[in-house]
Amino acid sequence: MPALLLDGKSLARQIRAELREEVADFIENNVTIPTLAAVLVGNDPASEVYVRFKRRDCEEVGIRSQLHRMPEESTQEELLALIAKLNKSDEVHGILVQLPVPDQIRTERVLEAISPLKDVDAFHPENVGRLVQNRPVYLPCTPHGCLELLKRNDISTVGKHVVIVGRSDIVGKPLSIMLAQRGADATVTLCHSRTQDLPAVTRLADILIVAIGRPKFVTADMVKPGATVIDVGINRTDGGLVGDVDFDGVKEVAGHLTPVPGGVGPLTRVMLLVNTLAAARRLEN
Amino acid sequence: MPALLLDGKSLARQIRAELREEVADFIENNVTIPTLAAVLVGNDPASEVYVRFKRRDCEEVGIRSQLHRMPEESTQEELLALIAKLNKSDEVHGILVQLPVPDQIRTERVLEAISPLKDVDAFHPENVGRLVQNRPVYLPCTPHGCLELLKRNDISTVGKHVVIVGRSDIVGKPLSIMLAQRGADATVTLCHSRTQDLPAVTRLADILIVAIGRPKFVTADMVKPGATVIDVGINRTDGGLVGDVDFDGVKEVAGHLTPVPGGVGPLTRVMLLVNTLAAARRLEN
Repeated sequence: MPALLLDGKSLARQIRAELREEVADFIENNVTIPTLAAVLVGNDPASEVYVRFKRRDCEEVGIRSQLHRMPEESTQEELLALIAKLNKSDEVHGILVQLPVPDQIRTERVLEAISPLKDVDAFHPENVGRLVQNRPVYLPCTPHGCLELLKRNDISTVGKHVVIVGRSDIVGKPLSIMLAQRGADATVTLCHSRTQDLPAVTRLADILIVAIGRPKFVTADMVKPGATVIDVGINRTDGGLVGDVDFDGVKEVAGHLTPVPGGVGPLTRVMLLVNTLAAARRLEN
Repeated sequence: MPALLLDGKSLARQIRAELREEVADFIENNVTIPTLAAVLVGNDPASEVYVRFKRRDCEEVGIRSQLHRMPEESTQEELLALIAKLNKSDEVHGILVQLPVPDQIRTERVLEAISPLKDVDAFHPENVGRLVQNRPVYLPCTPHGCLELLKRNDISTVGKHVVIVGRSDIVGKPLSIMLAQRGADATVTLCHSRTQDLPAVTRLADILIVAIGRPKFVTADMVKPGATVIDVGINRTDGGLVGDVDFDGVKEVAGHLTPVPGGVGPLTRVMLLVNTLAAARRLEN
């Protein structure tokens, strides 16, 4: 029996509908509208698309969005000056700088400049540290999306062995900590390019989460029958968008599987909205 | 053949000897002496002992130490005022508040108040976050001690399966990330009280690290023959100080094993000195 699909797209739609009501409530009880300031430096076509999607998402739930465009040749100083202004602005609750930024600008310097209270991507080191200490201000969007996808499909992580493939700053590392903490209570194994005999490790997983950016890397022989497989990858190939998991093969083995597109991606986007509303609540109280 | 012992005591002595020379060099090239300010609130006997050891360690390598005593009934405000003063002082490079603090004081509030640049315990959330992002200011002492013990005994972690038992903020969680990062390159599994069939998981370990605070919890049947076993536990029992590992049983199975006392403990202490010298270098340059 092929795997049940974990439909992120319709779940994201449902969460946006919930958010729309929460945002309306917030606006009724406060003088201000939750507002996300997006900063876009240069003209990277993929970044243009991402920012457009994020603004459209905001609009759909009643969050106001600002777009601050800066030319490709902007200096780090200029970008930091804009961030400082947004940090101070009473009208802005969440700030996001669309990555990547041009080479003359140091990414870490930018992420550290955003006020932790307005850091809706949760990339500021203070927010990463608070996450590890299990008292987060905001949850990072993609890991949060993965957890929500499991939770809303009634897939418990308690006592389960979760294997994560990929040790990135924005997915693998924070997710490994979040899943091992009290509440999630999973046994967590973090794998990467230096892992020996990866298939033997991934076959241990009750829940397998893959975030490495290599098309169709995880094949059916790497999956324990009945396991839940979450594919975070989004790779552009000649055959269109594909994940890090070989969907056609793995769907014959897994118990649950996310499609790409339509799996984790829509939830990542919705979590940015969740954080922006949380930021507005925090800053207005 | 019984396990080879990983002798933390003599390794710590060796590192202190190295540090003594580095501290002497530093003093020769700077007008200031590296200085650690220890803050002790109340009269907890164990804390008294820890602080005394830490000060003696400092003395041995030529680091100056200050002891700031505050009465048991001190308020959080009073402690924060002292920390603010130490943060500003040009004479102080490292600050450590001996834990636990009395109940009327919130630990997190205290740890967040220490300037990240003087946070030689590396407990400030910003330092925890920078650690996760693999650009640490200081490494936390116990995890760093474990890594140094492996490194100086030529036990590589690259591609190895490391299983960590215990998900504390000061050992298990940071250590799991440090070992999985580029450089250490281990496949890391983080276990805890909710892990199912723990012996099956610990038997996967090439390197098993235990930090749960339960005397002799890890027994021989939980260890893969030939594995390296690092025992972070220090438990006071009627039979004296014992670790989290059943030493007598496990030494017949493991390839390498730390004794308790004399294993990780001495290295934890020495790493505080390493961080204090690093803080002095950072603040004087």
